[in-house]
Amino acid sequence: MTRSELFAQIQQKSSFLCVGLDPDLNKIPSHLLKEKDPVFSFCKQIIEETADFAVAYKPNIAFFEALGARGWETLAKVEELIPKDIFTIADAKRGDIGNTSKLYAKAFFESMDFDSITVAPYMGEDSVTPFLEFENKWVILLALTSNKGSLDFQLIQDQNGKALYQSVLEKSQAWGTPDNLMYVVGATRGELIGKVRKAAPEHFFLVPGVGAQGGSLSEVAKYGMNSSCGLLVNSSRGIIYASNGKDFGKAARKEAEKLQLEMKDLLDKYL
Amino acid sequence: MTRSELFAQIQQKSSFLCVGLDPDLNKIPSHLLKEKDPVFSFCKQIIEETADFAVAYKPNIAFFEALGARGWETLAKVEELIPKDIFTIADAKRGDIGNTSKLYAKAFFESMDFDSITVAPYMGEDSVTPFLEFENKWVILLALTSNKGSLDFQLIQDQNGKALYQSVLEKSQAWGTPDNLMYVVGATRGELIGKVRKAAPEHFFLVPGVGAQGGSLSEVAKYGMNSSCGLLVNSSRGIIYASNGKDFGKAARKEAEKLQLEMKDLLDKYL
Repeated sequence: MTRSELFAQIQQKSSFLCVGLDPDLNKIPSHLLKEKDPVFSFCKQIIEETADFAVAYKPNIAFFEALGARGWETLAKVEELIPKDIFTIADAKRGDIGNTSKLYAKAFFESMDFDSITVAPYMGEDSVTPFLEFENKWVILLALTSNKGSLDFQLIQDQNGKALYQSVLEKSQAWGTPDNLMYVVGATRGELIGKVRKAAPEHFFLVPGVGAQGGSLSEVAKYGMNSSCGLLVNSSRGIIYASNGKDFGKAARKEAEKLQLEMKDLLDKYL
Repeated sequence: MTRSELFAQIQQKSSFLCVGLDPDLNKIPSHLLKEKDPVFSFCKQIIEETADFAVAYKPNIAFFEALGARGWETLAKVEELIPKDIFTIADAKRGDIGNTSKLYAKAFFESMDFDSITVAPYMGEDSVTPFLEFENKWVILLALTSNKGSLDFQLIQDQNGKALYQSVLEKSQAWGTPDNLMYVVGATRGELIGKVRKAAPEHFFLVPGVGAQGGSLSEVAKYGMNSSCGLLVNSSRGIIYASNGKDFGKAARKEAEKLQLEMKDLLDKYL
């Protein structure tokens, strides 16, 4: 998917919502456990109910990998199920040397047809660029994450006062463009999102940490939005586990719509 | 596996060789492609021929993941095949927030029975510690890698002149101990291995980059060995692709033995 196609969808749906698919067998409604593939049934219903309000889906690969070979099959089926005009993110946080990264890229971009994959920057350029060689596919590079451990290394300043996440933003902009490179930018610190936006004015940001992880949507929009929105804001648990009864699909729909309505207001305000 | 069990095996075999299993369908001997599961047949024969000389096997997860659900099944079968007294490393370079890391840990430590997994440090403590909660299981944390891109971020110095990889070594020693935490330390720079050894005197290092990636085994031993060896030196392509004919197993055995004999001399010299 191209950047303009993504932006067109954002405008059409008045939404920049990404729904995170973290299907945990211990959390999904118990009536689904009788089904042949409970994780698939769960994801299917979530997708069907929220597709009107979401511009992206982000399966968290760990939740599928935890189920072994079968989980891998389920992941492929879930990816196929997502409507083709909706952006898909393999949240895999991969990162390895060149020939290995190339294999990961083939797994997610060719064997499956994901639009993008999250990638960790620690190993540097040759661990990232193999993912950038696929047409209309995207790398979403970890820059500033929203977890507590992000403080351990990402904010370490170099001798010019530049934090590690800023070096990641700076160097990686020589590897990819706003048309094939996005950044993960955590939502727990509004003013930091503003700093990242200054360093990467055109790039899309995938923003986790709204909802269960505690960020504020209006802060994110205020500091992070650019002229083509430039934001995909993710919500996982707040939507997919809104109910653990038979009404989980409808409950997910309601939560997704609630976020979409907030997003519409913010798009009207800032765009 | 415990550290003393690992050291006992190193002494018994006079070897600190790790054989990297990177089974690429484009590189394995063509006569295997007729088999039902060529990757399994390839790995089986490599393991059978090299087990006398190897103290560890390191399947590179990307090579299995690239084959989809079937590759995942093959990986589980390969892991089961490795003799239980040999250390197993899932080279997956995972790293995600707490609940996701826990799922990856379960996938590799419980669903499969790997002794260890490689982990990327960028997301900090809560992305690493979930892997440390399993008895006799290990995290192998990326510290200083051997690829070109390692120069991009790992050597950035903070305001006290401490490089990022040194911060990783320092902080992570508060999370794990020499009994459940190893480090990936690239072999391309002998003097740097010495620096890492000073910063982490007791920990085992997994050293890639000997052979095809160009490091020198004697340099690694000189700068990196400690009183319980403290080294697992990996060779992948140099062993597993020593021949692409029907004699690939015997050729792999020969290369593994050659390295083991060098390692015996180095163990005699430094231990």
